[in-house]
Amino acid sequence: MNFADRLMEKVDEKRSHVCVGLDPRLDQIPTEITDKAVAEYGTTLEAVYHSILEFNQGIIDAVADYAPIVKPQMAFYEQYGHWGVKAFEKTVAYAKESGLLIINDAKRNDIGSTAQAYADGHLGSPKFWDEQKLESNSDSLTVTPYLGSDGINPFVETCSDYDKGIFVLVKTSNPSSHELQDLESEGVKIYEKIAQLVSKWGEEVIGKRGYSAVGAVVGATYPEEAAKLREIMKNSYFLVPGYGAQGGTAADVIPAFNGDGYGAIINSSRGIIFAYQQDRYSDDYQEAAREAIIEMREAINQALAKAGKISW
Amino acid sequence: MNFADRLMEKVDEKRSHVCVGLDPRLDQIPTEITDKAVAEYGTTLEAVYHSILEFNQGIIDAVADYAPIVKPQMAFYEQYGHWGVKAFEKTVAYAKESGLLIINDAKRNDIGSTAQAYADGHLGSPKFWDEQKLESNSDSLTVTPYLGSDGINPFVETCSDYDKGIFVLVKTSNPSSHELQDLESEGVKIYEKIAQLVSKWGEEVIGKRGYSAVGAVVGATYPEEAAKLREIMKNSYFLVPGYGAQGGTAADVIPAFNGDGYGAIINSSRGIIFAYQQDRYSDDYQEAAREAIIEMREAINQALAKAGKISW
Repeated sequence: MNFADRLMEKVDEKRSHVCVGLDPRLDQIPTEITDKAVAEYGTTLEAVYHSILEFNQGIIDAVADYAPIVKPQMAFYEQYGHWGVKAFEKTVAYAKESGLLIINDAKRNDIGSTAQAYADGHLGSPKFWDEQKLESNSDSLTVTPYLGSDGINPFVETCSDYDKGIFVLVKTSNPSSHELQDLESEGVKIYEKIAQLVSKWGEEVIGKRGYSAVGAVVGATYPEEAAKLREIMKNSYFLVPGYGAQGGTAADVIPAFNGDGYGAIINSSRGIIFAYQQDRYSDDYQEAAREAIIEMREAINQALAKAGKISW
Repeated sequence: MNFADRLMEKVDEKRSHVCVGLDPRLDQIPTEITDKAVAEYGTTLEAVYHSILEFNQGIIDAVADYAPIVKPQMAFYEQYGHWGVKAFEKTVAYAKESGLLIINDAKRNDIGSTAQAYADGHLGSPKFWDEQKLESNSDSLTVTPYLGSDGINPFVETCSDYDKGIFVLVKTSNPSSHELQDLESEGVKIYEKIAQLVSKWGEEVIGKRGYSAVGAVVGATYPEEAAKLREIMKNSYFLVPGYGAQGGTAADVIPAFNGDGYGAIINSSRGIIFAYQQDRYSDDYQEAAREAIIEMREAINQALAKAGKISW
């Protein structure tokens, strides 16, 4: 089944447009977890591995009923070398067992056979004797478009072969995103040009419900741009970062949705996984994560209803 | 010592502007290596790890006298999950012991604390109890500029703190690079805008010999653009891919150098590491790699001399 159809099935099942960002910052993981790992493995990378994995499994248990999809941010794993990547792999496997889809937020980009190697490793099957699938194999991947179609086509073909998805960076949520993305050429902005390409790249991989396997990353901090981009990329699912910690509100993210109440997945990382550090939530990190995701899910669903964009 | 100074010291020592791309495509590794690994470990990822590592060590032994720097392409490692990343780490460690510098060609990009995690992991020190350095720690990293300064500043600060370098994608060697990079805005092309930013990002990290720790990726397949970019980024070292297999010749890469005979590192991957598959070189992969790199080193040095750009 096409990735967008698989995603929408999960969205319907959980009645939720929330994506949980799994950014396991070691110094924010509850000390009961890290202390136990250090007691057993010393202050080693192996202890880092066990800390990250136990924390993520706890978060996945807490949010699985309320999230269609989770988004591990690859940087927070690969910074610890192969031990970190092993934690990533086990996290992905656990999320799958728990009925969640996965976005690997790795912002990969390269050309030709190198892009194919990334696509094989993260979405398809890397070439080796066994042709066995890796545990690190995700449902979707974020990619960066600076290299043009040569850097995107291998991913799209792999999406087609394996029912996977990509989210192409279009308009990001950070302050300096304007330096390149907002430059104007031939009367349109660079991010609009990329949006046109995203729409084109997705044409051959549209699912039964009208959405394509080629999605877009569109920051929640720029709601006006989101509305414009929604017009250009009618068939693309948007991955929207910047909710909560980066300043985006439920009202800000509504323009990212289509009139049918679908078409956007709203990510929150710190606001959910480290909610236990905020006074208004429980001190228990799992309980706090559950409170925070329920609150966020309701806020978005209500804002959608108010805007007349009804999913259910 | 500033990364550019460290690089130039190695360039002088080896009298070479050649970078060897370590792209260990499993199906091109000599069968005597892969057969041995499979006999011992079966058709497993562990056998992939041993195959890649033994092959890379052989290449490093063969080219160490003729190359200042090597460039593992991260995609060919991480596609095999944590086993591949372990092969990457051991390769980096072996290259360092052999007196070579390393470019991790990973084209990473993200913002804020996420970019910092990439910078910590690949160039600095990731945060954990031990503060020990990882074996995967490279001398330099390729990065993609789509996110603007927010996505570059954390890397530049880490370069400054740890005497490391980055190479920012400016104009790439692939056919579709024009789709985004050649768009014109306010009378200049996007890649020229990025070049202006690269020059600015590098201002605070210029070494004793006048080159900055912020370099640029400039494809060998576009020599006219290289000459223009040389003017904009006077203090940046260029990493030039596309030599050989992608069609670039020694004459094509000369515009990437400054008049002083420095300022560019020319990469060849397949043309050196898999030279044994070409009729004109030895059947022994190490001997063939040595022949190919000596030939390439001489071709570039002679073309530089002919152009009056004399390094030594």
